Amino acid sequence: MSRERSAAQTHVGTETRLSPASAARFSLYLRCLEEFQNQQLRKISSSQLGEALRVTDAQVRKDLASIGSLGQPGIGYLTSDLITAIRQALGIDRHWKTVLVGIGNLGRALLGYQGFQKRGFKIVALFDNNPTQIGKEFQSLIIHPISAIHSVITESGAEIGVIAVPSEAAQSVADQLVDAGIKGLLNFAPTMLRIPKNVGLKTVDLTVQLEQLAFLIQGIELS
Amino acid sequence: MSRERSAAQTHVGTETRLSPASAARFSLYLRCLEEFQNQQLRKISSSQLGEALRVTDAQVRKDLASIGSLGQPGIGYLTSDLITAIRQALGIDRHWKTVLVGIGNLGRALLGYQGFQKRGFKIVALFDNNPTQIGKEFQSLIIHPISAIHSVITESGAEIGVIAVPSEAAQSVADQLVDAGIKGLLNFAPTMLRIPKNVGLKTVDLTVQLEQLAFLIQGIELS
Repeated sequence: MSRERSAAQTHVGTETRLSPASAARFSLYLRCLEEFQNQQLRKISSSQLGEALRVTDAQVRKDLASIGSLGQPGIGYLTSDLITAIRQALGIDRHWKTVLVGIGNLGRALLGYQGFQKRGFKIVALFDNNPTQIGKEFQSLIIHPISAIHSVITESGAEIGVIAVPSEAAQSVADQLVDAGIKGLLNFAPTMLRIPKNVGLKTVDLTVQLEQLAFLIQGIELS
Repeated sequence: MSRERSAAQTHVGTETRLSPASAARFSLYLRCLEEFQNQQLRKISSSQLGEALRVTDAQVRKDLASIGSLGQPGIGYLTSDLITAIRQALGIDRHWKTVLVGIGNLGRALLGYQGFQKRGFKIVALFDNNPTQIGKEFQSLIIHPISAIHSVITESGAEIGVIAVPSEAAQSVADQLVDAGIKGLLNFAPTMLRIPKNVGLKTVDLTVQLEQLAFLIQGIELS
């Protein structure tokens, strides 16, 4: 949990690191800029970005200045320049070798999800503990048994592990991934994982999203 | 987008509404309390909760006081009382009739996900536009064509729509759900939906989580 809510802006060497909150905003800027690019919009203003994200122009200009993209008054920003700068700031201007553990419906949905490849997350190995699945091939990748996590990760140099197994198996899988030297985990199991501080963790807990939606609707109804 | 980042604490009638940020924290408290309950812990202190969530005791006490749960000095809180109070504050102490649109791998993964039922989200209808799927039955629910959204929702009184279709179909599906009177959408398509302000929206964009994970790992490596 602590990694998900770690310190605000900190200095690393000579660089100023983004805070997690602004990093989250940059993900949204990026999504937005890519949509603008799809619409052939070569230039964009801070007010266009602000409007799309419902933040102020000033916040947009401040955020973009923090990664060195100043734009030009009256002209704005070049869409493609901003995309490059944000990808760099977020650390997705490179490839991340990723393994996927759990090839049930969710795992298959994730495998079919173009977003991974598009963001530089290349799935290099699959794992499952179902004997009827082990040895089968999906998208040119063979499903390994979970007991092979250590050897396969060591060999492939994978850095990110995606956990799509049932809750009761998630901690054990996380432990094995951490032992094998993985640097970050994306966890879909609705459970709180205990992992060392030097491993990144993001949990996608769908019930949290549903609860927040219920809360939001309640607010709209009462307002 | 705006609904996801709407105003801070606001007054509704005589009640003080939670801010979205504290609502998100209550989701985490709830997850944590349920784990404690599974471990047969009948009582819990603010410091135990704070430790699990990596927030201060003071923050925990302030949050819980805001929903009227004061606990007793030296004794703490009753786990079951807190669970009840938080479920009520979040609006999940009731049932939400939910429909699921898109019965591909992701849709099936969602259908198999116990968390929905457990939180009171009862899936009452399924939709897909694949002719080989329409009319088939999943978990005692028949898959309807997407063209039937309006009539099925009107009849069932469903309030929440879960969108698990490809990006290019998501806006059209959202429009049809909104037309049919749905109150809130949980969107899994990696696209920005345009919906009226009186409809709640939560987007689960997996690439955002992956980007944040990459950002986090980069930070750990540099630190």
